[in-house]
Amino acid sequence: MSRSRPVIALLTDFGPNDNFVGVMKGVIARHCPEANVIDLAHGIPPQSVMHAALALLGSYRYFPDGTIFAVVVDPGVGSERKILAVRAAGYTFLGPDNGCLSPVVRENKGAKFYEITYRPAEGLSDTFHGRDIFAPVAGMLAAGRPLEDFAREVPAVAEYEIPGSRAVSANKIAGSVVYIDTFGNAMTNIRRSAVRGEAKIRVGKTGIDGISKSYAEKEPGRPLAVFNSFDMLEIAVNRGSAARELGLKVGDEVTVELKE
Amino acid sequence: MSRSRPVIALLTDFGPNDNFVGVMKGVIARHCPEANVIDLAHGIPPQSVMHAALALLGSYRYFPDGTIFAVVVDPGVGSERKILAVRAAGYTFLGPDNGCLSPVVRENKGAKFYEITYRPAEGLSDTFHGRDIFAPVAGMLAAGRPLEDFAREVPAVAEYEIPGSRAVSANKIAGSVVYIDTFGNAMTNIRRSAVRGEAKIRVGKTGIDGISKSYAEKEPGRPLAVFNSFDMLEIAVNRGSAARELGLKVGDEVTVELKE
Amino acid sequence: MSRSRPVIALLTDFGPNDNFVGVMKGVIARHCPEANVIDLAHGIPPQSVMHAALALLGSYRYFPDGTIFAVVVDPGVGSERKILAVRAAGYTFLGPDNGCLSPVVRENKGAKFYEITYRPAEGLSDTFHGRDIFAPVAGMLAAGRPLEDFAREVPAVAEYEIPGSRAVSANKIAGSVVYIDTFGNAMTNIRRSAVRGEAKIRVGKTGIDGISKSYAEKEPGRPLAVFNSFDMLEIAVNRGSAARELGLKVGDEVTVELKE
Repeated sequence: MSRSRPVIALLTDFGPNDNFVGVMKGVIARHCPEANVIDLAHGIPPQSVMHAALALLGSYRYFPDGTIFAVVVDPGVGSERKILAVRAAGYTFLGPDNGCLSPVVRENKGAKFYEITYRPAEGLSDTFHGRDIFAPVAGMLAAGRPLEDFAREVPAVAEYEIPGSRAVSANKIAGSVVYIDTFGNAMTNIRRSAVRGEAKIRVGKTGIDGISKSYAEKEPGRPLAVFNSFDMLEIAVNRGSAARELGLKVGDEVTVELKE
Repeated sequence: MSRSRPVIALLTDFGPNDNFVGVMKGVIARHCPEANVIDLAHGIPPQSVMHAALALLGSYRYFPDGTIFAVVVDPGVGSERKILAVRAAGYTFLGPDNGCLSPVVRENKGAKFYEITYRPAEGLSDTFHGRDIFAPVAGMLAAGRPLEDFAREVPAVAEYEIPGSRAVSANKIAGSVVYIDTFGNAMTNIRRSAVRGEAKIRVGKTGIDGISKSYAEKEPGRPLAVFNSFDMLEIAVNRGSAARELGLKVGDEVTVELKE
Repeated sequence: MSRSRPVIALLTDFGPNDNFVGVMKGVIARHCPEANVIDLAHGIPPQSVMHAALALLGSYRYFPDGTIFAVVVDPGVGSERKILAVRAAGYTFLGPDNGCLSPVVRENKGAKFYEITYRPAEGLSDTFHGRDIFAPVAGMLAAGRPLEDFAREVPAVAEYEIPGSRAVSANKIAGSVVYIDTFGNAMTNIRRSAVRGEAKIRVGKTGIDGISKSYAEKEPGRPLAVFNSFDMLEIAVNRGSAARELGLKVGDEVTVELKE
C-alpha cells in the first residue's frame, strides 16, 4: 500500500442530521490529520445489520487499496459483543461482531481475523463506540500504527447468514425487497448470479417480462426489472418511483420464474 | 490554474442516505488521492434537471479557479444521451447532455465544448455512470491528465430552455415557485435583473408590498419577498416557514407588479 | 498549534439537501486549499440556537487543538446582530451573537472575545453570511492570518440562558425532551452532574426505575434511561425508537426523583 494519503471510509446508521459522524471525524483528525475520510453512507436504516452488510459488499471494491472501512451499525453497543477487524483483498474492515462483515468475509478466502482490544484510557462511553473505539483505531491505523497494537489475531469469526433469495423449484427463485433508494427503486436480495437466461418477475400485482439493461430501455412511466450497479435485481419505473407507483415496500416478496 | 490541490465539486440527486456518492468518492480517490472533493449538493429533487441547472448557476462562481464540477442528474442514463464537458470561466463542467449545463453555457461566451468519449475497459453499468464515467474522468482530470485524453472537442452543444419567468405586460412578470429550501423559503424562477423599481408580489392569497433587503427587516411571522443569496426572488416568513405558513409548494404561480 | 493541517468544523441548520454548505466549502477552498473541513452537523432544527449550543457543547472537545468552529445558526441574519469570535480551550469559535456560543464560554474561564469586523469589499448578501463572512474568515484564519486582521477584541459578550433542567425540590428535578435523534432516542436537557445516586424517571405515562449504563442492559423493546455519550440524560428503547414507541416529542416534560 502506498502511504501517500490514507483513506478511511465510514458506513453507519447515524443519518444525515446528528453530530455523531462529525465527532468521529474530529477524533480521526486528532490521530491522522492527513487522512481522507469518505462518507460511504450514513443512511443505513437504524440498526439494520443486513443493510450495512449489503452496502459494504456492493461498495468496497471501488475504493483504493489499503482503505480502512469502519462499519458502525451496532445495536449491541455496550453489551459484551466483540469488535472485529478483518484484513482481506488489501483492505482493513472494522465492525461489530454482528454479521455486518460476513458477506465480505465469505467472498474473500484467505482473510485474516482480529479482535480489537483497544479501549481508551478514560472516557469510554457505553453508547458511542464509534467515537471512543472505531474512530481512534481507524485514525491510528491510517497514521501507520500496526493493527497488532490494538488487536489480537483470532483464527476465525462467527459467520452470520444474511437473508438472501432461495430457489423454490428448479426454475423459480423467491426473494424480497430489501431497500428502497432515493429514487424509489426497490432493490431485492436476488443477485445477478442466481438468475440465468430469460426471466419473468412478479412483485405484488405487477408482472414484468424480461430484465432490462437500463432504465431508459423502457418508456417513461413503465415498470421494469434491472440488475443494478451492485449486481442486485431491482424493480424500477423509468423516470418514476417504483415504490410510489407500484406501491412497493421493504419486505415485499419478489419471485423470478426462469424460462429455460 | 495552480496545481496545489485540485477541487472536484459533486452535484447530484443521490440524496443523503444511499452509498452512491460514497462510491464515487472511492473511485475518485483511486485516481487522485489528493483531490479535495466537495459536496456541492445531493438533494436535487430526483431527476430534476432544472433544479440542478439552477443550483449550479447559483453556486459555481464561489469555487476556486480550476474546479471540476461533476453534475450527475441523469434521467437518461443508459440511453444514447451524450456526456458533455464544458470549459468556461476557468472551470470544467461535466454533465449529461440534458440541459443541466445550459444556464452556465449561456452566461459564458467563449466556452469550449467536448463530448466525453471515455468508457471503462470493463464493468460499465447502464445505471450508474456517476461511478463508471463521471468519477474516473473527474479524478483523472484532477490528477492532471488533459481533457483531450477522454473527450473530443465539438463545435457546440444543444441548448435547453430552463423554464423562467415571463413578462405578461409592460409592468407585470409571471413566474413560479421552483424550490422549497430547508427553511421553508420558496425560491422562484424570477431573477433580480428582471425586477426594476418598486414591486408588489402576489402568490396564492398572499400579497406582499415591496421587496425586503433581509428576512430580519420584517417582524417575526410576517411574510416577505427578498432576493436571496443567488439573486432569485424568494418568498419567506421571518423566523418561520413560508411553505408551511403560507401553504406554498413547487409550481405555485407568483406575479410581480412593477410600480413604475 | 501545529500548522500541519488546519481543521474547520461547520455546524449549521442548513440541512442535508441544499447547496448552502457546498458553497461555503467552495469559498473556504479559495482561501485555504489545504484545510480539512469537517461537517460537525447540519441537521440543527431550523433557527434553533439552543440545539446548536448543545451540539457544540457536546462535541468541541473531541476535535484537534486549533480547530476553527463556524456555527451558522443565524435567525437574525441581515439585522444588526454582531458576529463573534471566541478563543477558548485552544479553539476558535465563530458564531452570531445569539447564545449559540454561551455554554462553551461558560465552561471555559479565561476566554478571549472578539467582534468580527470583516465585510467583503463587494457582494455582501443580507441572507447568507455563512458564505459571505463566516466562510472567508474561517478560511483566512485556517490559512494562518491573525484573527486581529478581521476582528477587534471586546471585553465580554452577552451571555444567554440555554433553558436547562431545574430542581423543583430537594430530591426532584424537572427538565424536558430537547432533541430526538436518528434512532428515536429522546435527549433531555438534564446533565449527568445534576443527578446523583439512584433515580426514578417519569416521562408521560412511562416510569423508569434507575439509570442504565448502556442500551443493551435492558431487553430489546424495553424503555430505559441512560446518560448518553454527551453526558445528557436520554430516554431510549433498546433496539427500538423511544420517540415512536413511547410517543415522545420535543418539549415533553421529564422528571427525575432522586432516592437518597
